[in-house]
Amino acid sequence: MDDDQRKTFDRLFSPKSLTIIGTSKAYSGLDGQFFLRNLQRADFPGRVYLIDPITQEINGLRTYPNISALPEVVDLAIVCLPAKFVSSVLSECVHKGVRNVHILTSGFKELRTPEGIQLENEILRESLKGQLNIVGPNCMGPYVPASRLMLWGQIPANPGTFAFISQSDNLTQRMTEYAHFMGFGISKAVSFGNATVLDSTDYLEYLAEDEGTRVIGFYLDSVQNARRFLDVARRLNRTKPLVLWKAGETALEAGSVASNPTISREDRIWENGLRQMGVTRVCSLEEMACTAMALLNLPPPKGRRLFILGGGGGNSVYYADVCLHLGLQIPPLTGETQEKITALVPAVGSFARNPVDAWRSFHDPDFMKKILDVAFSDQDLDMIILDRLIHQLTFGQPVYTDTTQLTIDYLQKNRMRKPVVVVVDGSGEDPFLAEEAAKMRQFFCQARIPAYSSLPLATQALAHIVTYYEKIKSSRGTASVDLADV
Amino acid sequence: MDDDQRKTFDRLFSPKSLTIIGTSKAYSGLDGQFFLRNLQRADFPGRVYLIDPITQEINGLRTYPNISALPEVVDLAIVCLPAKFVSSVLSECVHKGVRNVHILTSGFKELRTPEGIQLENEILRESLKGQLNIVGPNCMGPYVPASRLMLWGQIPANPGTFAFISQSDNLTQRMTEYAHFMGFGISKAVSFGNATVLDSTDYLEYLAEDEGTRVIGFYLDSVQNARRFLDVARRLNRTKPLVLWKAGETALEAGSVASNPTISREDRIWENGLRQMGVTRVCSLEEMACTAMALLNLPPPKGRRLFILGGGGGNSVYYADVCLHLGLQIPPLTGETQEKITALVPAVGSFARNPVDAWRSFHDPDFMKKILDVAFSDQDLDMIILDRLIHQLTFGQPVYTDTTQLTIDYLQKNRMRKPVVVVVDGSGEDPFLAEEAAKMRQFFCQARIPAYSSLPLATQALAHIVTYYEKIKSSRGTASVDLADV
Repeated sequence: MDDDQRKTFDRLFSPKSLTIIGTSKAYSGLDGQFFLRNLQRADFPGRVYLIDPITQEINGLRTYPNISALPEVVDLAIVCLPAKFVSSVLSECVHKGVRNVHILTSGFKELRTPEGIQLENEILRESLKGQLNIVGPNCMGPYVPASRLMLWGQIPANPGTFAFISQSDNLTQRMTEYAHFMGFGISKAVSFGNATVLDSTDYLEYLAEDEGTRVIGFYLDSVQNARRFLDVARRLNRTKPLVLWKAGETALEAGSVASNPTISREDRIWENGLRQMGVTRVCSLEEMACTAMALLNLPPPKGRRLFILGGGGGNSVYYADVCLHLGLQIPPLTGETQEKITALVPAVGSFARNPVDAWRSFHDPDFMKKILDVAFSDQDLDMIILDRLIHQLTFGQPVYTDTTQLTIDYLQKNRMRKPVVVVVDGSGEDPFLAEEAAKMRQFFCQARIPAYSSLPLATQALAHIVTYYEKIKSSRGTASVDLADV
Repeated sequence: MDDDQRKTFDRLFSPKSLTIIGTSKAYSGLDGQFFLRNLQRADFPGRVYLIDPITQEINGLRTYPNISALPEVVDLAIVCLPAKFVSSVLSECVHKGVRNVHILTSGFKELRTPEGIQLENEILRESLKGQLNIVGPNCMGPYVPASRLMLWGQIPANPGTFAFISQSDNLTQRMTEYAHFMGFGISKAVSFGNATVLDSTDYLEYLAEDEGTRVIGFYLDSVQNARRFLDVARRLNRTKPLVLWKAGETALEAGSVASNPTISREDRIWENGLRQMGVTRVCSLEEMACTAMALLNLPPPKGRRLFILGGGGGNSVYYADVCLHLGLQIPPLTGETQEKITALVPAVGSFARNPVDAWRSFHDPDFMKKILDVAFSDQDLDMIILDRLIHQLTFGQPVYTDTTQLTIDYLQKNRMRKPVVVVVDGSGEDPFLAEEAAKMRQFFCQARIPAYSSLPLATQALAHIVTYYEKIKSSRGTASVDLADV
């Protein structure tokens, strides 16, 4: 990406001025009025100009009849007019010298009609005339908390270091929520729709060099140039983990497949390529958010051996299943560690084995600390999961003193010694518990202790980071990945 | 199961009288006092006797010095004394003629100590003397809302027709919560611990003939006689679906497996046997609850073709992935159906294809009904998913009139025409949304419209019931399954 293009992208994500074209007076769905209200809620500090040939004022802002009438060349133009008016607006942008355009409007090639395709071709033609950077059409566009460019998504939200890119409005919106409530925050998110001009790889190239971004998440269902995408992915993944949800595994076969799903040949090539490159592949948004949280907050694990405290003895068998499927181990405790744990944990009603099941740890933080101290010190245990019941779940017992803050204080002090995460499982469909558990997780997450809603999600995230660091370590100096078939 | 044994089991699950042995004056964890308080909260209507040689009264009830002193032969004795006192209590039970005993106490063979094993052998010896039906030791025992025998678990809770059996207290407790909040309720649940006397197959045999039970869920990590278990399972599964979570797939290899998990040979035999028998196999509690809800509320599907309304156009690719992995289809709409949907759904900003994405359906129930009417009438669509955004999730739009009740009314009228389920996805880790979404799901579930927290869970449940009914249909008259290897 050349310097001019990079600076233009910078202005797209941190505009000092922008214009919204097509803003109804009253709220009527997803349109310019909706964007304007959100910018105002988010205290967007830049200059905002509205274009409207009829009205004089909307939401207390004066309107301009067209882009040529604006007092400056804005950093970003947001087009919310019906499809048939879009190309003439782009022509105005070219004339004025505006370089960045986000087109919210639908009604282009996604309709699969000759008219829609023709209208989309006009977008492409205008973009070439004026070197326009076009996001969309048919999408919600950029979301950047650091510059208060929050046209949609979680508002308010703090900036973070995770970037998320997808063609789907719905998924991008959801990711802004995960990022906010899991505490890691968004650096830049883009929902980019039809990708007429800017495609996946353009965003990826920009983010590869973006100082504010440490981890990149991508939901990809199709890409124009897979080889170019994967080349960029391989390069950036060594220093900036890429977490990829590649959908469409089976989509080519859709409609023709009955009860025997087939993984497409194309997908097998992706799978092999990504595995060689060490790119983390996930298959849900939740898994992506959980993995991002682990990458952003945990030190690299030294190995695959887990220590688990809590959870109930009856869970140890299926915990073993879950871990072994992911290539993690819950090893037997040995030597000094076993002796110390045996001395601490009562024999009856508890388990002094890994996983350690000790009821008392849920309401006696000093006891919990003593057990975890043993695990932190044992060089044969690489990662720690604290599987924490919330009080209401403890078989309806009277509420003990809330020990959450004491637990957090302890974990924060030790969190860089080895990866440690918490599980607070509020499943069971009780609305009250669902809320309480989510609140408790948020409390941990805000202290940079990753907290997960289930053991499978926690172990999946840990397995991903172990694999990532192993691959990155082993790939130094190896030949490039062969993606000739993609 | 002979008649005497069945009647004894009946008394275990619906005791007219019971005694608790070992009740502290004050609450001190999981013990007799805990059980007593729960029985009182649940308005247990039977006679409750407490045994205590020192005190005269506990919680307003007089105490008896020992079992012999009780004024009647109770239907159930619950033993909460330390392990070393248990066998003498059992001896008293034999002497008095008490047949059903639940032993909460831990400290037996699960300790893997010679003393623990010896104490457990004493339990077995006493049981043989007096034909004792012993649940446990080391478990929470039975839970039966119909007889208000709710010593633990969700309290209060309405009776239902789903039975759940497992060795794990934690999982059984959780299932009582799912059953309550998903509205289908529990007929009988048992957490049976060490299985010294009564083992998995005994409970299964009883439930096979239990009139109050229509679907059976089982979490199994080990079983003494796999062949007998599978024989009973095969017989009952034809009329009473068995949903089995068989854990321990990889457990034999635990400790020796590094990064390559191996499915054990034993597990492959189970897997093949269960598949031939048409027993539904799940791998989490949530999946079991979701499947039970579908079995208990939906008519048998005619095929594997799904119609989906809602969810956002950007989701259609990964929805196709999810469905095809499960052997379900989201077929293209054809003929009259496509014409009707095209006429109803605006071309721009919506998708008049399967999945149909039509924003308006979330706040205009008449519009939604018109679309669903088309789907209910099309004989080439077998099942329907309504993927419903909750209002707060609709990109922060103003709250529309709540149309939930109107939606429920419509679905209730049509629910026996073909399987129809709802998805209300509150993921994203916002505590408020988590609660709101769970409340909305509960609202649907109470009206017997299964509501799921994600599309993958909904489709998984639907795939299980399609497969169950296909297997049952095709197995009529075929030879018995070969389980010689198990």
